[in-house]
Amino acid sequence: MKSFNDKDFMLQNEVGQKLYHEVAESLPIFDFHCHLPIEEIYSDRTYDSITDLWLVEKKNGKAFGDHYKWRLMRANGVDEAYITGDKDKKEKFVKWADTLQNAFLNPLYHWSHLELKQYFDIDEPLTSDNAEKIYDLLNEKLKSLSVRKLLVKANVHTLYTTDDPLSDLHYHQLLRQDKSFKVVVNPAFRADNFIKIYAPNFSEVITALGKVTNKEITSIKDLEDALDERLAYFAENGCLAFDVSFEDFLYQKADIDEVDHIFKNALNHETLTKSDLAKYYAEILHFFGKACAKYHFVMQYHLKALRNLNSRAFETLGADSGYDAISDTDLIHDLTHCLDDLEKENSLYKTIIYTLDPSDYEPLLAMCGSFQKAPYRGKIQFGAAWWFNDHRDGMEKQMRALANYSLLPHFVGMLTDSRSFLSYARHDYFRRLLCNLIGKTVEDGEYPLNEEFLKKMVKKISFDNAVEFFTKD
Amino acid sequence: MKSFNDKDFMLQNEVGQKLYHEVAESLPIFDFHCHLPIEEIYSDRTYDSITDLWLVEKKNGKAFGDHYKWRLMRANGVDEAYITGDKDKKEKFVKWADTLQNAFLNPLYHWSHLELKQYFDIDEPLTSDNAEKIYDLLNEKLKSLSVRKLLVKANVHTLYTTDDPLSDLHYHQLLRQDKSFKVVVNPAFRADNFIKIYAPNFSEVITALGKVTNKEITSIKDLEDALDERLAYFAENGCLAFDVSFEDFLYQKADIDEVDHIFKNALNHETLTKSDLAKYYAEILHFFGKACAKYHFVMQYHLKALRNLNSRAFETLGADSGYDAISDTDLIHDLTHCLDDLEKENSLYKTIIYTLDPSDYEPLLAMCGSFQKAPYRGKIQFGAAWWFNDHRDGMEKQMRALANYSLLPHFVGMLTDSRSFLSYARHDYFRRLLCNLIGKTVEDGEYPLNEEFLKKMVKKISFDNAVEFFTKD
Amino acid sequence: MKSFNDKDFMLQNEVGQKLYHEVAESLPIFDFHCHLPIEEIYSDRTYDSITDLWLVEKKNGKAFGDHYKWRLMRANGVDEAYITGDKDKKEKFVKWADTLQNAFLNPLYHWSHLELKQYFDIDEPLTSDNAEKIYDLLNEKLKSLSVRKLLVKANVHTLYTTDDPLSDLHYHQLLRQDKSFKVVVNPAFRADNFIKIYAPNFSEVITALGKVTNKEITSIKDLEDALDERLAYFAENGCLAFDVSFEDFLYQKADIDEVDHIFKNALNHETLTKSDLAKYYAEILHFFGKACAKYHFVMQYHLKALRNLNSRAFETLGADSGYDAISDTDLIHDLTHCLDDLEKENSLYKTIIYTLDPSDYEPLLAMCGSFQKAPYRGKIQFGAAWWFNDHRDGMEKQMRALANYSLLPHFVGMLTDSRSFLSYARHDYFRRLLCNLIGKTVEDGEYPLNEEFLKKMVKKISFDNAVEFFTKD
Repeated sequence: MKSFNDKDFMLQNEVGQKLYHEVAESLPIFDFHCHLPIEEIYSDRTYDSITDLWLVEKKNGKAFGDHYKWRLMRANGVDEAYITGDKDKKEKFVKWADTLQNAFLNPLYHWSHLELKQYFDIDEPLTSDNAEKIYDLLNEKLKSLSVRKLLVKANVHTLYTTDDPLSDLHYHQLLRQDKSFKVVVNPAFRADNFIKIYAPNFSEVITALGKVTNKEITSIKDLEDALDERLAYFAENGCLAFDVSFEDFLYQKADIDEVDHIFKNALNHETLTKSDLAKYYAEILHFFGKACAKYHFVMQYHLKALRNLNSRAFETLGADSGYDAISDTDLIHDLTHCLDDLEKENSLYKTIIYTLDPSDYEPLLAMCGSFQKAPYRGKIQFGAAWWFNDHRDGMEKQMRALANYSLLPHFVGMLTDSRSFLSYARHDYFRRLLCNLIGKTVEDGEYPLNEEFLKKMVKKISFDNAVEFFTKD
Repeated sequence: MKSFNDKDFMLQNEVGQKLYHEVAESLPIFDFHCHLPIEEIYSDRTYDSITDLWLVEKKNGKAFGDHYKWRLMRANGVDEAYITGDKDKKEKFVKWADTLQNAFLNPLYHWSHLELKQYFDIDEPLTSDNAEKIYDLLNEKLKSLSVRKLLVKANVHTLYTTDDPLSDLHYHQLLRQDKSFKVVVNPAFRADNFIKIYAPNFSEVITALGKVTNKEITSIKDLEDALDERLAYFAENGCLAFDVSFEDFLYQKADIDEVDHIFKNALNHETLTKSDLAKYYAEILHFFGKACAKYHFVMQYHLKALRNLNSRAFETLGADSGYDAISDTDLIHDLTHCLDDLEKENSLYKTIIYTLDPSDYEPLLAMCGSFQKAPYRGKIQFGAAWWFNDHRDGMEKQMRALANYSLLPHFVGMLTDSRSFLSYARHDYFRRLLCNLIGKTVEDGEYPLNEEFLKKMVKKISFDNAVEFFTKD
Repeated sequence: MKSFNDKDFMLQNEVGQKLYHEVAESLPIFDFHCHLPIEEIYSDRTYDSITDLWLVEKKNGKAFGDHYKWRLMRANGVDEAYITGDKDKKEKFVKWADTLQNAFLNPLYHWSHLELKQYFDIDEPLTSDNAEKIYDLLNEKLKSLSVRKLLVKANVHTLYTTDDPLSDLHYHQLLRQDKSFKVVVNPAFRADNFIKIYAPNFSEVITALGKVTNKEITSIKDLEDALDERLAYFAENGCLAFDVSFEDFLYQKADIDEVDHIFKNALNHETLTKSDLAKYYAEILHFFGKACAKYHFVMQYHLKALRNLNSRAFETLGADSGYDAISDTDLIHDLTHCLDDLEKENSLYKTIIYTLDPSDYEPLLAMCGSFQKAPYRGKIQFGAAWWFNDHRDGMEKQMRALANYSLLPHFVGMLTDSRSFLSYARHDYFRRLLCNLIGKTVEDGEYPLNEEFLKKMVKKISFDNAVEFFTKD
């Protein structure tokens, strides 16, 4: 029987253990997609309480923090007062500890204990019984830590934040000038606000874009011109990553005049049909796709993320409060047309496609395989298990599927997609599962024990591939 | 090599074996959803032939029994005369034995042998060769058994039957007065007939409801008033369970006048569109959902059960003859609106959602997680693997998915959903798989060996959670 | 640790090893669906270069060969010149070797090494380093091989080619007369061209059918009469297999006059709606289904194969160049109606249904179970993991699903679906996985160690069932 969370955690075979300890364990991290706040990196924020850092903190009455944990606390019957409400920080932590103990086989159990161990040298499993003691201990240790120290401790080499296209990227510029901090921090262009034409605030978003770019935006042409200016600005500021998150993916080619008409209707707050949305998406995604090729931005699609399902909770707590889910609609036909239309114009650039719905894996991988092209190794990437799926079963399923339908060694690997400065333990979790999978395959006699090749593969997936993929060619 | 069906059947690790034998094995059963006939429990029916009890019996020319087995017999090339036809009972049993021997890895192989062992002390695997001998032996043993004795032998603590909302619940009342029988038997409100507005006999169902409630039902308002009366009557008679089974789940909010119009059209046998159905469902499901909150009924949705696919077979054999299947349509959007509309009015009560389609698991679990709420631990339950999916792979997949996306210890666990008095062996099968999963997780070092916690978790999932979930709060 | 590709490759348990070596290994192959060219079997073609046989060859400027490999080479960043282009054959082979080395866990890694071992006695794993040496060695060995020798070496007993309904089957007739060649080679009726009413060349296809049958075809009735003539001709020439491949499966019953109108519109190159397609499919599939019953052709449906996703590649390389994928649309409702309409008329004959989308497995198996019928054991077959899914995980998933929902011993087993004369190693791969699965089940105590039964099951699935299924009854 293996003991919990020892040095060979998740490593069930000797080849895997060797690959992990000799290669993966000490590699730096290249995190090409996260939601860390640049201001806090720049200011090198510190924390008084682990609750603020790990769980939740209130700013101007609104709760911010790790909504993955909030969801589990609700499933554990914890009153909202102890989650996003006004209860004491220690009490909140104790409620979280009880929840965590019930998270049997859940990834949060694993991530949380890896975080306790790697950032705070705490080996003891967190339970209701020791929660208060560990709370105090963590806060004591926090005194000598800060945001930057956490990133350095985690061995982060590069990270991409997620930025509003209207951002002046001021803090990115300031941080770049600070030569004392060695971690590379780049901005990413997050296009959602300009895609979600159905959002109640869409016309305000367009107005704001007009202000930033000093243009009057009344047509789809104006919109694209203004966006191009912002894309160029991001490119000048070190951005090499574009990303967008979709609820349902729709794509229907239409005449530019018709799209222009739809755009104007949206600005006038008129009701749009599903077909209107599909036509607008086709135009704007095609525009963005060509822009990615022009500016050498890796194009990232995050598919099937349903948001804010619980209306009452949304009214009181707003977005990103743990009320999101996974869609189950079809997407292969529309997604194929989207990529094919870019490829027709030789404008399909390096791309990563993530889906929340595991039943998409095989269709999506087969589709990606139809757009691979030299000179890139793995030009169209099937993204890592994401968000709800970042658990052992999910990660293994994603990696096995990738290997079954494509070439595992060219995989760009793990990202955090996280709002938490402690979340880099997930990279370690991923690497353990990767080495375990590779080791098992070899020990089962399904691939030769070619140590040099295996070590190189582990290094590529853990770090090198991401560096190369996010290098301007 | 393990031997077949020994005391550690399905238990591949020591921790799992210990948990099973020290905790799960001897716990009573709380079966919150089955289709056992209350009349036969009340009358304490006995059987001359195992074929009647286990396989099929004819009543007034129609065949009743275990249509799971009938399907397999057809796949085995057995002529219908030996299944639902008029062949001799022993011959039918022999044909079943040959079928069973071919059910390699199929759950019926496992359930059937657990049943032979647990109810009849027969260890020998059933084959074509020993079928006649075992048939006689079973019939001999049946002489000292009866329906009530079988339930007691299986250690059933409580069971919920599935009842027509028009039932007078007479036998339930009689049974409750019989203090000699210790098993608690409660009725459940099965709403299907009042949901399936497209059924040819819908207007007759409404007429029958009018008779039972002594009302004239000509509007949707009348319908809801009459149903409320029946719900109240069920509540008075110990019911705490509501359930409904869906083919395709549709839900579209509409004005009550429009729904009233659709309802009247249905009574007049006019053709309804898919949109009409969706609007009627939205109204009636919302009504039933609020009623569940009012009467403290656990709301159970059984999703994606397609019925009577084979028209010729349906004409000769009728419903529940083994010609059902699993739908593959989308449901997350509509189901979300359904739950959200209840939650908006603070009327979403304890709920269990079952699906037949395993590719729904992740989307459905993520959706359930968006409606969890204090003070309940696991208020919105992701129901056990069901019907076609009650096999080792299916149960493990359901439990692992639940653990990956939510909190396994709060799971309400197994139900039989069965028409057979021998089906309680499935609870044992479930518990073995549960203990095996927990034991493996611990032995692999993925959770600490906290024996007290693990034992409590096994006890909760095997029994306590169901008791608590079906207790009026 | 097992060594790679030894005699017990993929066999992780003793029972499985025994079953494989004592039963499966030496059984002949009955390949009921492949795409081997009959002309090359008749002429007993030989090869100068392994590249021609294994990878790609150019004929009249168009590339032919194994597009599974081409896809992987593209994912590996290989320039198209080395795939379908004009580069040297040895250089192409070297690029393939590098790709293969990266195909960690991919089925092509396993198949390719089994092929090297079984056809050429090469044990050494192919890498970039030894590629040139092995290229020369293979070409040397090829000197003493030919198409017929390869088939005999692979122990092929019977194979079904895939034939154009307009074919005169001349080479089949010639081959049948050649008594020196013992492998049975039968034609199969591939109906795609007569189903794909939306294809740009549909009217030309109909014209060609008219020429071959010496009829003027202007109505749906004419079409069916002409097709019936071709079906009869195929039946006379040893055909017992019908098959058709679908992108999205649609089926909507309509009046024959309406279908006739749609057919005429198609001949006039008018645009068809999705509903037109569904109505035409319903008619023509029903016609073909009845024809299968009439001529005793096993009806094979290949579902969810999307073709030619990449327009630019299609323009330069044409079909079957590795740009295909898997659809994700719903199909259970329409497919049920299709089978049910045949069953209503007692015209549903032996059928095999394959899907590319693994999330269909459970719904499809449950549906198949609703149309099983005596006297056939496994009348409606759930086809083997196919095309993209022919890997260890995919094959195991397909077999476990089949066992969970139906009766594994009646499975008709593996087919190659291949254009390559070396592809029979996949049957060996399948048999290893089959024996491994059975052995594991027994060693885990989930089925008794009844050696006679287990051996018979292995023999049935590896060979006997296919023989029986493709025997005229």
